[in-house]
Amino acid sequence: MSTAVLLSSCPDAKGIVARVTGFLHTYGANLVHADHHADLTGKTSFLRLEWEQEGFTLDAASFRAAFSPIAASMGMDWSLHFSDHRPKVGILVSKQDHCLVDLLHRFAIGELPGEVAFVAGNHRDAKPMVEHYGLPWMDLAAKAGDETAKAASEEAVLEKVRTDGVELVVLARYMQVLSGRFLSDSAAPVINIHHSFLPAFKGGRPYHQAWERGVKVVGATAHYVTEDLDEGPIIGQDVERVSHRDTVDDLVRKGRDLEKMVLSHAVRLHLSHRVIRHRNRTIVFD
Amino acid sequence: MSTAVLLSSCPDAKGIVARVTGFLHTYGANLVHADHHADLTGKTSFLRLEWEQEGFTLDAASFRAAFSPIAASMGMDWSLHFSDHRPKVGILVSKQDHCLVDLLHRFAIGELPGEVAFVAGNHRDAKPMVEHYGLPWMDLAAKAGDETAKAASEEAVLEKVRTDGVELVVLARYMQVLSGRFLSDSAAPVINIHHSFLPAFKGGRPYHQAWERGVKVVGATAHYVTEDLDEGPIIGQDVERVSHRDTVDDLVRKGRDLEKMVLSHAVRLHLSHRVIRHRNRTIVFD
Amino acid sequence: MSTAVLLSSCPDAKGIVARVTGFLHTYGANLVHADHHADLTGKTSFLRLEWEQEGFTLDAASFRAAFSPIAASMGMDWSLHFSDHRPKVGILVSKQDHCLVDLLHRFAIGELPGEVAFVAGNHRDAKPMVEHYGLPWMDLAAKAGDETAKAASEEAVLEKVRTDGVELVVLARYMQVLSGRFLSDSAAPVINIHHSFLPAFKGGRPYHQAWERGVKVVGATAHYVTEDLDEGPIIGQDVERVSHRDTVDDLVRKGRDLEKMVLSHAVRLHLSHRVIRHRNRTIVFD
Amino acid sequence: MSTAVLLSSCPDAKGIVARVTGFLHTYGANLVHADHHADLTGKTSFLRLEWEQEGFTLDAASFRAAFSPIAASMGMDWSLHFSDHRPKVGILVSKQDHCLVDLLHRFAIGELPGEVAFVAGNHRDAKPMVEHYGLPWMDLAAKAGDETAKAASEEAVLEKVRTDGVELVVLARYMQVLSGRFLSDSAAPVINIHHSFLPAFKGGRPYHQAWERGVKVVGATAHYVTEDLDEGPIIGQDVERVSHRDTVDDLVRKGRDLEKMVLSHAVRLHLSHRVIRHRNRTIVFD
Repeated sequence: MSTAVLLSSCPDAKGIVARVTGFLHTYGANLVHADHHADLTGKTSFLRLEWEQEGFTLDAASFRAAFSPIAASMGMDWSLHFSDHRPKVGILVSKQDHCLVDLLHRFAIGELPGEVAFVAGNHRDAKPMVEHYGLPWMDLAAKAGDETAKAASEEAVLEKVRTDGVELVVLARYMQVLSGRFLSDSAAPVINIHHSFLPAFKGGRPYHQAWERGVKVVGATAHYVTEDLDEGPIIGQDVERVSHRDTVDDLVRKGRDLEKMVLSHAVRLHLSHRVIRHRNRTIVFD
Repeated sequence: MSTAVLLSSCPDAKGIVARVTGFLHTYGANLVHADHHADLTGKTSFLRLEWEQEGFTLDAASFRAAFSPIAASMGMDWSLHFSDHRPKVGILVSKQDHCLVDLLHRFAIGELPGEVAFVAGNHRDAKPMVEHYGLPWMDLAAKAGDETAKAASEEAVLEKVRTDGVELVVLARYMQVLSGRFLSDSAAPVINIHHSFLPAFKGGRPYHQAWERGVKVVGATAHYVTEDLDEGPIIGQDVERVSHRDTVDDLVRKGRDLEKMVLSHAVRLHLSHRVIRHRNRTIVFD
Repeated sequence: MSTAVLLSSCPDAKGIVARVTGFLHTYGANLVHADHHADLTGKTSFLRLEWEQEGFTLDAASFRAAFSPIAASMGMDWSLHFSDHRPKVGILVSKQDHCLVDLLHRFAIGELPGEVAFVAGNHRDAKPMVEHYGLPWMDLAAKAGDETAKAASEEAVLEKVRTDGVELVVLARYMQVLSGRFLSDSAAPVINIHHSFLPAFKGGRPYHQAWERGVKVVGATAHYVTEDLDEGPIIGQDVERVSHRDTVDDLVRKGRDLEKMVLSHAVRLHLSHRVIRHRNRTIVFD
Repeated sequence: MSTAVLLSSCPDAKGIVARVTGFLHTYGANLVHADHHADLTGKTSFLRLEWEQEGFTLDAASFRAAFSPIAASMGMDWSLHFSDHRPKVGILVSKQDHCLVDLLHRFAIGELPGEVAFVAGNHRDAKPMVEHYGLPWMDLAAKAGDETAKAASEEAVLEKVRTDGVELVVLARYMQVLSGRFLSDSAAPVINIHHSFLPAFKGGRPYHQAWERGVKVVGATAHYVTEDLDEGPIIGQDVERVSHRDTVDDLVRKGRDLEKMVLSHAVRLHLSHRVIRHRNRTIVFD
């Protein structure tokens, strides 16, 4: 079934749902999902509507023409998405490939609604698997500290994002910090997996930190990347119990599973147009 | 904030959300939650709308008058609820009182939107705690097998449900099977907690069954009671890990926590008007 | 079944388990549980042995006489406990009584191997429930900032701990910080429940902090209290998923359930002699 | 660190741990883990001891010679394992390859202590990935109902198990039922992943059954295969929450993740010599 999705946010007011669903009904939409969330603290309304494309009489351009004045009158930010369109995704990876291998298989069996445009890495460990799936590989500068090489690598990724029309960049355990310039220049949002239950254990070696503190639960966090490291809006988190029997290596092993699950879950939510970023939080219509 | 809630289900069709939210908007409703679920298998649409009573110009009677024709034209089953109205709840209990003690405290601190009308039990263990909270206690026939005494007890409960205007009956580890006659005569739906992860381990002594089978997870299930024992629509379930180290007594102990959590959660969902029963399943707008 | 438990830690070396179990066997012990953990990082061995008292030929005094030289030769810290002995527990509470009500019921039905000696509070909300269970209540200074009154309250609790032979103090959402003097003078260890997933959201109003950060999981942490606030050895933690639909009040409600479960779990582990503190971590033989 | 592991079970009696650890100490063993479990219902003692090979003065043959009389005197079943020895594993697969892909990656990065000897399938979908890892592929009869072809396939697998010295067979979503003859002739135990929370939803299409019943939690179960279908000893289980929003396809998707995690976990436990089968239950020293 082909569907269209409208994501929107606007100042809270009476009649938002009635106006937007009324508009869609006028043009023959058959709703399959409708979710509305009013954040009464921030006085903001969020809406996710999904309807069958069959029988709906507006294409993207005519939708824009007809809906823009209505949206403007409500001060609404909105985006329209079609399930027929499979967004292109770029993936960055370092030495550890568990998240990458997991994502590639999920894309391959059609679980994730998009397609991988390229994989770029500052280590070549994952290259053969990427080629097994018939996907393009791009080498990135490997050495930490060489700022010129790093800037050139980032520029190459940005260029690839542009030319391929990439709509999402996924950091699948990419261990270098992206520059503010990359983040502001990239048309595509960037999702990262952090190997701790943020905001606990920010920064490096979180599993070592967790072991030292003697926590009984470890976690992983998928978030949009912003210039404030480890502070971007959180999309998803999950945890696993640990005990004194777990060494740091055990935490790392349990963490790999958490990272795979949490990252792929966040990528699926984003590509299914289920996430709205609002200030430093996310609305996730799951 | 006082709110009103509309729960509805009807054959799937175009324009349901638009018509209902449009109707509400006409009378000044400010929506705080809107959830719509289309079950494409069963071709049924479910809707939960919640709006502020302030500024809404219809009372219950005029709502009925104005909305009934619209609902009828869509073949809609619906109910209207007001957060100001605190539904009365009757609780049945046997010897084990952990679920009861848990529920009474939750009602007392205002966590559950309703009030306890009475507690009835076929053992008197819980009576002092019920009286501590200043609530009426009713003795029920204790002996299994005495059908006349059991029928009289059920009749007494039915009478109490009627006279007190009870809207929900909760079986808080009540270990007798209610008769079909009770279920059909009771105006109030009945929620039960079953001490297993249904449909596994139906019937008696589920923790013993679970231990024998050597499962690594035990669970509890809250469900509406129907004449088919252990087969009613499931409202909520949760589980806990167990190991070979757990004896049957340990399973029972872990089960108590599951039962408390799952039952009180289901009661809260029901009393918040978040559950629609549809055939043998539930739609839970949480 | 009456059992004895030996908890021990010592520098890792060959033959520890053989020597200790050999010693017990000499005196007729029938082991029901044996757990050994070697922390290879810290080169320390931890041991928990539990055996039937029936047939064991040493009482506490003769055990001490016979075992002390062996323990000394291994540099072992050890303690001996008997399941027949029900340790006395003191509980401190403030306004919110959900953890207290939960603990009192668990003690009452025999789930927790100990008995409540007294409950002390700086608010009187919980007093009637304490008296329902026939337990002594003690008033503590309520006002923050009055250091003299606070010191007097702490002194009264210390005195009660001494005279009653209390072996564990539980802070069941007691919202005042105990002085270093209290902690050093108390013969009984102190267990606290912190309403966040430590080390995230230390300090006050953790649910508000969690909401602001937009986390998708909230937690609770039971830990031994040390002079470093929120930094003591963690005994147990658990978490619950949250979403954008959860207001701060919902986080508080979900938190109450986490706090009850995590605190009672930690108290049970401690009273079952399953926890060894070692530096700032715990070994939990569950 | 190279270690040896002793797994044993015997009728419960005094002095088991003392005798066995005393024996090991005599030959210089430095214990790193010791776990003892007494099943008081069945009056059986289970033991898992792990010690460093460095400094231990017995090899496998001399261990057998020295330990057999002691074991015999206690009526003990026992097995000895060395972490240096990497057991060979055969994997059977059908059309769906998610468990296989997951396992192959875990073996490749060294997370699972063993090595894949071959992969056999009754569909060729997974063949390219198996070859990517440089592993042997074997074709099995694909058609259901052709008993002669099926018997020939089973014989080929048995032959391969024999000639390769395979010590574990893993059914990674292999959708044909192995014959009793295969199970009795195979020297290697067989682990299967069942896509439900057994004993709920035995038999075919468990996710459809789960959807029909309206459960709020789905699960997966890893178990040793016996002639009683879906009744073998359970090694591990895990669950995931579902709601009315989840279609059967969503249950299948969530199930894939559960299956991967639960199966790989069970394989790791088995290959780490942490599982003892006892009647129809397992003792899992994790």
